Amino acid sequence: MRILALLDGTLVDPDTPLLRSHDLGVQRGDGIFETILAVDGHPRELEAHLDRLERSARLMELTLPDRAKWQHAVRTVLGEWPWGSEREAAVKLVCTRGLDGGDGTPTAFVSGQSLSEELMRKRARGISVVTLERGIDPGMMERAPWLLLSAKTLSYAVNMAALREAERRDADEVVFTASDDSLLEGPTSNVVLAEDGRLATPPPSSGILRGTTQGALFRAAEEAGWRTAVEPIARERLWRADGVWLASSIRKITQVHTIDGTSVATDSGLHERICKLYESRY
Amino acid sequence: MRILALLDGTLVDPDTPLLRSHDLGVQRGDGIFETILAVDGHPRELEAHLDRLERSARLMELTLPDRAKWQHAVRTVLGEWPWGSEREAAVKLVCTRGLDGGDGTPTAFVSGQSLSEELMRKRARGISVVTLERGIDPGMMERAPWLLLSAKTLSYAVNMAALREAERRDADEVVFTASDDSLLEGPTSNVVLAEDGRLATPPPSSGILRGTTQGALFRAAEEAGWRTAVEPIARERLWRADGVWLASSIRKITQVHTIDGTSVATDSGLHERICKLYESRY
Repeated sequence: MRILALLDGTLVDPDTPLLRSHDLGVQRGDGIFETILAVDGHPRELEAHLDRLERSARLMELTLPDRAKWQHAVRTVLGEWPWGSEREAAVKLVCTRGLDGGDGTPTAFVSGQSLSEELMRKRARGISVVTLERGIDPGMMERAPWLLLSAKTLSYAVNMAALREAERRDADEVVFTASDDSLLEGPTSNVVLAEDGRLATPPPSSGILRGTTQGALFRAAEEAGWRTAVEPIARERLWRADGVWLASSIRKITQVHTIDGTSVATDSGLHERICKLYESRY
Repeated sequence: MRILALLDGTLVDPDTPLLRSHDLGVQRGDGIFETILAVDGHPRELEAHLDRLERSARLMELTLPDRAKWQHAVRTVLGEWPWGSEREAAVKLVCTRGLDGGDGTPTAFVSGQSLSEELMRKRARGISVVTLERGIDPGMMERAPWLLLSAKTLSYAVNMAALREAERRDADEVVFTASDDSLLEGPTSNVVLAEDGRLATPPPSSGILRGTTQGALFRAAEEAGWRTAVEPIARERLWRADGVWLASSIRKITQVHTIDGTSVATDSGLHERICKLYESRY
């Protein structure tokens, strides 16, 4: 199932071409996006995602349509979604820099699409992960803003290549590491560790995206009395933690059972508590 | 002027949308490209560009249409170009991974477009450049192939952001540097130095694209008795060289007159010799 809406709220056929060949989104991956989970008609963390979209636009110096238009287009997609037969939808917001040589009008759209069965299986059964060098040092984000380390751009070819590398190594997913061997993020997720009743995730200042799902989990955990930490995390801590998860809108909080071919601690009771904390927000 | 052809040789209106919103080229910058200069009806270095396109496809594990189809689509575009009024065209070859959730059929097209007046001015008058850290060390390409350092992908958001950073610094162009302060490449060019009758450029093994225009220049220079070197180049050599150029298909061999706000040597006689060497290939 796929539903597509323009920013004026018009529904269009997703099988009809939408972008010209000289759109800068096509030619240069020059645009930004967000992916939002909607459950039973309700988008999760919509405002946090729109905040991050605006932040990406600022970092990219991109003209972004008004927030109200995005909200309207999201509602349009959700209004068309067949909730009776599919309880969840991935809602993607995309904005490109518009046409090469054009007047700067961005190309923007919102799509809703089904979640894959494979994703559902991974949510239920957990995943294996490999750590791969991302080739950045932790001070680079501040030093070299042109590397766009904290913008969610359409230039995701490296993220996709890392996932193919994981597949070659018989793993499901990737956690990138920095040049000092500290943890960064997954290609489309944030990494979360539980250690003695404390949740930890690497800091955005290391050159990674602020996680909306990780953020939602941490707020819920704090309210429930957990300690949380946003701090540099050495790679070795993965194998000493009580549990490791990848968090993102669509995969929710997916448990990791294997890293670089070696088992890590899994505790089904702990996993259930973490998932309930996250779900308690909605 | 813009001419657009599909890989079956069909001409299509470039103002009609061509790509669906869920094309992986749009969603993930997941595709590859080449840009070729055509002069008076003739494409320059077509086979070298097709070689590099095939190399990019291998690195990206991308299904690429047959070489003969690309050649045919290029001929179709060149056949339509108004050579009487425009003597040069930029011919772009694009191939994406096709539709998200599709059968793997790539989306491929060839476009011809006019060169901008600004580019012509820069060719004639030379350019100012800033050096910007690229955040990679020279051994990374071999160590981390998933970073796609030697593939020419559609994920060019960082390259475009670097050019905006140059503009902020009142410069025209960028030369990226590695973590050891050696030279890499421009966002869409290779850097060439002349030093005592010898031409030098950084090695592809440092994580940069093999330059087709730089390669053409070096072959011509070698035949004319110049020494050439493909070797690591420390940033300081820019200011000791007899001349510095950025080379690419569309900009040809453009002279650099200023780097990081400081003048570098320019010699109009030397520049003319270099340009003639390059033109002697065609």
